[in-house]
Amino acid sequence: MHDLKSCQNIIEEKISGLEFPESPGELYEPIKYILKLGGKRIRPVFTLMAHNLFSDDLAEAINPALAIEVFHNFTLLHDDIMDNADKRRGQKTVHKKWNENTAILSGDAMMILAYEYITRCSPEKKADVFRVFNHTAMEVCEGQQLDMNFENLEIVPINDYINMIRLKTSVLIAAALQIGAITAGANQQDQQLLYDFGLNLGIGFQLQDDFLDVFANPEKFGKKVGGDIVQNKKTFLLISALNYSDKNLVNELKKLILLSEKDMKKKVQGVKEIYNRMKIPEITKTRINEYFQLGMKKLELVGVDDKRKSNLISLAKSLMVRQY
Amino acid sequence: MHDLKSCQNIIEEKISGLEFPESPGELYEPIKYILKLGGKRIRPVFTLMAHNLFSDDLAEAINPALAIEVFHNFTLLHDDIMDNADKRRGQKTVHKKWNENTAILSGDAMMILAYEYITRCSPEKKADVFRVFNHTAMEVCEGQQLDMNFENLEIVPINDYINMIRLKTSVLIAAALQIGAITAGANQQDQQLLYDFGLNLGIGFQLQDDFLDVFANPEKFGKKVGGDIVQNKKTFLLISALNYSDKNLVNELKKLILLSEKDMKKKVQGVKEIYNRMKIPEITKTRINEYFQLGMKKLELVGVDDKRKSNLISLAKSLMVRQY
Repeated sequence: MHDLKSCQNIIEEKISGLEFPESPGELYEPIKYILKLGGKRIRPVFTLMAHNLFSDDLAEAINPALAIEVFHNFTLLHDDIMDNADKRRGQKTVHKKWNENTAILSGDAMMILAYEYITRCSPEKKADVFRVFNHTAMEVCEGQQLDMNFENLEIVPINDYINMIRLKTSVLIAAALQIGAITAGANQQDQQLLYDFGLNLGIGFQLQDDFLDVFANPEKFGKKVGGDIVQNKKTFLLISALNYSDKNLVNELKKLILLSEKDMKKKVQGVKEIYNRMKIPEITKTRINEYFQLGMKKLELVGVDDKRKSNLISLAKSLMVRQY
Repeated sequence: MHDLKSCQNIIEEKISGLEFPESPGELYEPIKYILKLGGKRIRPVFTLMAHNLFSDDLAEAINPALAIEVFHNFTLLHDDIMDNADKRRGQKTVHKKWNENTAILSGDAMMILAYEYITRCSPEKKADVFRVFNHTAMEVCEGQQLDMNFENLEIVPINDYINMIRLKTSVLIAAALQIGAITAGANQQDQQLLYDFGLNLGIGFQLQDDFLDVFANPEKFGKKVGGDIVQNKKTFLLISALNYSDKNLVNELKKLILLSEKDMKKKVQGVKEIYNRMKIPEITKTRINEYFQLGMKKLELVGVDDKRKSNLISLAKSLMVRQY
């Protein structure tokens, strides 16, 4: 049985062992750079652990796990251009370190590289893995488009927001798990349960991210608290608040949103206060908990011995940080 | 047997019948737009014709032919961003009609769509088609990167230029033909011959494009003559001229390259004159002819009756315009 550390080591070893053609360096260097920026490798770890539920030999799962990690990093690379982000994991983003054209083209090459790992799946599993991967990849693009659209809307219905994060974030986690089940030869029902486990967990994680950005303990939380408020980012919290029933409170919030750069401290404080008065933290925590519970219930139903699920359960619980 | 018109009709019908999800429209509208801008559909036609050499039933070749056309249009979409091009086939480019983020993301979605058509190949052909397609896709990215690199170099060796156009342009034409052979169940040798036919033809076409940009009869040639000279584009002509043995002539050329916008007429005239003195037109025509001859020889060797090759031969000849 492979725990988080063991799975991460497998992925890290594969990634640090990747070999790319020497030329053209301008195409391949950014790919090496972003892949080596690290991160927790959660998605490929989920693939390995899902596979490990049904089989002790992980070999079959490694190539699709790499495909998912490379695809995920491709989305980060292109999203960072679209969001005009300066930093990724504390380092310069590719389009800032090189330039935009390099980031577009290296991202394209990463998507092709992801498919290259799919071609290396065993023949009897390839068609199913390819189908799930491809469908999911398109959904991720849809999610990114919806996210961009929402930034230009005044009001976003909460269900639309949930649908957006489902597409942008959760389906890839869900597919990572389903693909691990496919490579291990699991039946359709268990594949679907693992997909649903990942889907609900993924939505919970994103809502948790939204929550922690405002209400995390700044000492435990790695990044600056309140960043989403400063940027007027359409998070679950802001959307819930803008949809709140008491229109006087909503109008107070809208005034705060319009505050300029120099009033940022006042803005973060003011928005937080309104969130508290609207009970947004409680609403959000309840929602996060519902998704986590629903996800864990799906995992419980997977038809393997409970002992085999211990690593997936530990990983899921460790990701539900509960610093609040 | 399917001639150019018949093959084009099959592709056009499929493309105009493509259905996309309604939402998010911002993602799918640009895809419909660029796919409907037209073009001669040469690559998918090559796939159908290569298949048709060996089989009268084209059904198996249609999905991979669409994959190649969608992939080709994806490369145009992203290349247009990188080249900051305003127009494509006489219409606004996607990043000008919408914006850059839309063009990046819709391009990504087109690449995924291309793979979607590969997943629809019949199970026994899919692995081979996928392998050729994927390898080729990565080479096309390498070619685009080399092309961008060359714009920043003072001197490019002629062989490096040929290698760049091989990757950027020719391998996709070659793969289109090989994939048609694969879907028809052709043997490895015929697959390779068709690949090599396309590869040589493709290099010839690109050199012909370079030539026609300067020396075409403006009345017969669709676009403005001399555009590459105005932009100092590193074409076969310019690269050959910069590598010319008489350094005095090369220095004269370099002075012309530095001429400003308002001296464009003088620049085009002057560069053309130097090309003529260096015998660049003759050198280029010889090279084009060599690639065409070599390509046609490969087609001759394909192990099917000569009669079956007539449509491919006609198409190849019609593409060798010889307006010079």
